[in-house]
Amino acid sequence: MTTIGFIGLGSMGLPMAFNLLKAGFGVRGFDLRTDAVGLLEDAGGTGAGTAVDAARGTDALVLMVVNAAQAETVLFTDGALDQLAPGGIVALMATCPPGVVTDLAARVEATGRGFVDCPVSGGVVGAVGATLTIMAAARRSVFEAAKPILEAMGDKVYHVGEEPGQGATVKTVNQLLCGVHIAVVAEAFALAVRKGVDLGILLEIMSGSSASSWMLKDRGPRMLMADPEITSAVDIFVKDLGIVLEAGRDAKVALPLAAVAHQLFLATSGRGDGAADDSQVIRTYHVMNGTRDLPSGN
Amino acid sequence: MTTIGFIGLGSMGLPMAFNLLKAGFGVRGFDLRTDAVGLLEDAGGTGAGTAVDAARGTDALVLMVVNAAQAETVLFTDGALDQLAPGGIVALMATCPPGVVTDLAARVEATGRGFVDCPVSGGVVGAVGATLTIMAAARRSVFEAAKPILEAMGDKVYHVGEEPGQGATVKTVNQLLCGVHIAVVAEAFALAVRKGVDLGILLEIMSGSSASSWMLKDRGPRMLMADPEITSAVDIFVKDLGIVLEAGRDAKVALPLAAVAHQLFLATSGRGDGAADDSQVIRTYHVMNGTRDLPSGN
Repeated sequence: MTTIGFIGLGSMGLPMAFNLLKAGFGVRGFDLRTDAVGLLEDAGGTGAGTAVDAARGTDALVLMVVNAAQAETVLFTDGALDQLAPGGIVALMATCPPGVVTDLAARVEATGRGFVDCPVSGGVVGAVGATLTIMAAARRSVFEAAKPILEAMGDKVYHVGEEPGQGATVKTVNQLLCGVHIAVVAEAFALAVRKGVDLGILLEIMSGSSASSWMLKDRGPRMLMADPEITSAVDIFVKDLGIVLEAGRDAKVALPLAAVAHQLFLATSGRGDGAADDSQVIRTYHVMNGTRDLPSGN
Repeated sequence: MTTIGFIGLGSMGLPMAFNLLKAGFGVRGFDLRTDAVGLLEDAGGTGAGTAVDAARGTDALVLMVVNAAQAETVLFTDGALDQLAPGGIVALMATCPPGVVTDLAARVEATGRGFVDCPVSGGVVGAVGATLTIMAAARRSVFEAAKPILEAMGDKVYHVGEEPGQGATVKTVNQLLCGVHIAVVAEAFALAVRKGVDLGILLEIMSGSSASSWMLKDRGPRMLMADPEITSAVDIFVKDLGIVLEAGRDAKVALPLAAVAHQLFLATSGRGDGAADDSQVIRTYHVMNGTRDLPSGN
């Protein structure tokens, strides 16, 4: 039986660790939140007091941390990597810039261990139901070795390439499309508002036409509200489109639409709306064009 | 029984005229292509030798012409409008810039006749099956009078506003979203290609994620081909994003994403690829970034 060290028992990490237990893996888990560690123990896992302790004697180390900086701290500064079995595998599942992932992978591989760059999509629902989409980049042999672990957490496990950083690239591309799709809905609405078109009817028509997108249907209705429920904040796209442009800079690829969309999210955050729902990037179009009275608070 | 003059019996106009006949309207039709006029006669309509002749004594004049300039010529230069019954209705169904539509409407209304700005979407399939989406802007009384005519040609007839130009705006907004959605797929692929990600796998993942759009699923596969079948040409979006930006200029609304997307289609056309499938806007990313050997012919 393979024993897995699991770092990061948050709203997604904890149910993912539960699914590893259900699949028959041993799990040694660590999180700064001790209540999460307790819940893992209740489910049959082993709680650890530090990341280094969680990694001790394990065959694979899963990182579901907040960002690349935390992954580096856990692996190298804290030294969890040294505790992982020789020939063991590190699976980095957090969303990180591709270039940073490539560097981390090289440093891990230099110790003789394997590295899987495998960010996820599907949110908490996918984490709980073991229905995550997992975009894995790794040498084939490493991917094959890690596959049973990944398949315990997701039902759509893709091997997107042999080079670590390519998984992060797929996730980055996903965020590029999402960010531009949200901003362009706001732009389309700005033109329609000026011409006095009813946005409810417009949204209904666009949702059923070739102009449709997942984001149009999801964020469009919230753009019609002055202060909608926050399902994902403006500042998430300030960060994620920042990662997109960092990836483009590292790879020297011009990304003009993503660059423009980023400016719109930046301005929205800069005016103090960074914590608002990301649909509220439309406020920047309204401010810029004077298209309607601003929602209260602006 | 209402008699309708129908100008423009093209691949969409002719089946639309057939559907008016099926619904019990009398139809007097004109097109420069005399074979199309003959087909209308075979179906029970009345062929006309000129636009003026088609309009003579009718209660409504449907214009399914190529562009706004043709509409103006037919109505005012040729003088078809004078033949339309006093109190009759002009229905402009071609895709035209909103500002031009507003002007045409004012000139028609000045003669005491009604004007419906009612562009369509749904293509030839929708025209044949009477399942077009029709985006109609008109004074409510005019819309109500025209509704039976419109419902003979489409099954989703929306009254999007009281001001002529608002229908054209909805169609313009539709094209804004479509054009940016196509270009951003190309941009996303450009980043992925540079990082060596397999675009087939990427497309499969994105099609099932929050990054999805109608255009991603439709144009994405054709972006992976060097010289795909042409379903809609690059030059259509050179024109349509031009109409989008003209609408923004007229209304004084900043449309930064549409402006960038237009540049990409313009460059693609300028290099000589204007007649290629619109998915081939990706060639501009490849040329610009040097991301892969260009398809033959470039």
